[in-house]
Amino acid sequence: MPELRQSRATKDWVIVATERAQRPRDFVSRSPRKHLPEHDDTCPFCPGNEHVTPPEITAYRSGLSEPNTKGWRLRVIPNKFSALAGTGSRKRESVDNFYRRMDGVGTHEVIIETPQHNLSLATMSAPQVEEVFLAYRERYKELRGDGRFSIVIIFRNHGPRAGTSLEHPHSQLIGTPVVPTHIRRLLEEAMRYYDDHGTCVFCDSLATELRSKDRLVFETKNFVAYEPFASSVPFETTVISKTHNASFGNISEREAREAANVTQSILQTIHLKLGDPDFNLVIRTSPFSDENEDFYHWYIQIYPRLTTMAGFELGSGINITTAVPEETAKFLRITKFQPK
Amino acid sequence: MPELRQSRATKDWVIVATERAQRPRDFVSRSPRKHLPEHDDTCPFCPGNEHVTPPEITAYRSGLSEPNTKGWRLRVIPNKFSALAGTGSRKRESVDNFYRRMDGVGTHEVIIETPQHNLSLATMSAPQVEEVFLAYRERYKELRGDGRFSIVIIFRNHGPRAGTSLEHPHSQLIGTPVVPTHIRRLLEEAMRYYDDHGTCVFCDSLATELRSKDRLVFETKNFVAYEPFASSVPFETTVISKTHNASFGNISEREAREAANVTQSILQTIHLKLGDPDFNLVIRTSPFSDENEDFYHWYIQIYPRLTTMAGFELGSGINITTAVPEETAKFLRITKFQPK
Repeated sequence: MPELRQSRATKDWVIVATERAQRPRDFVSRSPRKHLPEHDDTCPFCPGNEHVTPPEITAYRSGLSEPNTKGWRLRVIPNKFSALAGTGSRKRESVDNFYRRMDGVGTHEVIIETPQHNLSLATMSAPQVEEVFLAYRERYKELRGDGRFSIVIIFRNHGPRAGTSLEHPHSQLIGTPVVPTHIRRLLEEAMRYYDDHGTCVFCDSLATELRSKDRLVFETKNFVAYEPFASSVPFETTVISKTHNASFGNISEREAREAANVTQSILQTIHLKLGDPDFNLVIRTSPFSDENEDFYHWYIQIYPRLTTMAGFELGSGINITTAVPEETAKFLRITKFQPK
Repeated sequence: MPELRQSRATKDWVIVATERAQRPRDFVSRSPRKHLPEHDDTCPFCPGNEHVTPPEITAYRSGLSEPNTKGWRLRVIPNKFSALAGTGSRKRESVDNFYRRMDGVGTHEVIIETPQHNLSLATMSAPQVEEVFLAYRERYKELRGDGRFSIVIIFRNHGPRAGTSLEHPHSQLIGTPVVPTHIRRLLEEAMRYYDDHGTCVFCDSLATELRSKDRLVFETKNFVAYEPFASSVPFETTVISKTHNASFGNISEREAREAANVTQSILQTIHLKLGDPDFNLVIRTSPFSDENEDFYHWYIQIYPRLTTMAGFELGSGINITTAVPEETAKFLRITKFQPK
């Protein structure tokens, strides 16, 4: 019997289509990824090509190397083909006396995660991934004071099905001058839950997951990773802090390192057990104006791109998934949990 | 300068990324679609294989042919790998004393549009496409009386990037036991607009488009086709009736035929000028409970699948588009409109 499941956080429904259900191992990729070299002279993100990119915003370097030369471990640069511009007005304007537009003011940065062309977050060293998360945190904290932006979205695309055009390992960050409607609705639902229950819906979700254990994948001292009850795609995974906190920008350096380790563990189990599928990773954090709210909770969402969104999903907003979260959790599981 | 545009209907923002802007002709496909035969013995939807599919629900047949045999022009069957089941309870249940689930009760039908394996809505005859729309209407009217469903979503996937697995031309229809949250929000925004203005936001949009002419593609006696001001993907196109009507199920046979002709014209111009790209088509109609509302308006949305949704889109709900709707409208334009 197929099943409809509703997310507590978004109220969105998903269909778990049992008639077309696939077992977790049916999703394993059989086409190995193209072999990449350690260094590619034509890659704008490879060492030696620093002059090809816009000048760096910050970099983690060893020793005596100069900015915009070799010798970096991680490099943050403005996106050369930026989706938003550094200048412009935040004033909304009317078009045809009916529609609303504004200048695309914002920021769009690229975090080049490693000098090595052929690594991924799953195959880098642990300290390297920690530095990636420290760079996310540093850039977030720098941008939160900038009155031009309302929120910063940090994300990672891995592979062509996830929308990446450059192979060299990199993350991105976009600061937008509006609170996205999608985020506003997530906050509204969370606020409504808080007003009903006096608790954070994300804290209650993670407590439910720790109690149920059915969808848990990994647990550390301060973090939990699980497959959401109403996963919108197969192997969707949430990484969430046990400590309530609305903003990624509020976390300590120690917490950033632990978040990096947990995220890497999840990406490693996905890489190894599913054959390095394409994926998107997003840090869902509050707008700057809601960083200390009791009702919202920052978290990381990982979306393996194993399926294609079709007309029904576009028309209804209901995703059809052919994997059962309790089964994908079991398949990916890292921690050995005590039975209930 | 990049631009942010907001949809009046959904309040969703999109980024028109001028730094990466592509001209309409940059989207033309250079890889021609695989040549398909007129008939494929191994295709479950081809004539002669009627026994392979579940028994037909209805069919348009000429002469004396029997159900579930050759001789049909169009055939409606239950989806063999149905996303939802015909039986089950609409009662919501609690899982882990926290989440909400219900049986996946609903219906999932396939409309086989033509016996000929290698056609598409763009290349069929006009009367054939009219019959497809008459079948949509017939099935809608049959299902609206069924208390198990709250809404019927009619959609069409064309090509693998649009999520289709079978090449034989077909549309689908899913009846769900809940009003999708996505549709509920669309209705809420439309209701809020109505309460502010006393008019339908979709009627006002189409009046704006007819006045502005900048995004118009095609106009007939009773229908208009245009590129939405806040298009979420390049060449997104809306086909909408000039007559206010919340439900596709309320339209006359004559209106269904005209909607078919207009939609086919749009798909033909997309097919010819963009090189037969993959696309999704959705009929956005009200839930059964809102079929006579003054604030909602049924319409058809066409989404060419020329780009890939990435981490920013998943994380923010803001789509980045690299095409300017005024330019794509000019490129696709069918009607010669008088200058303003």
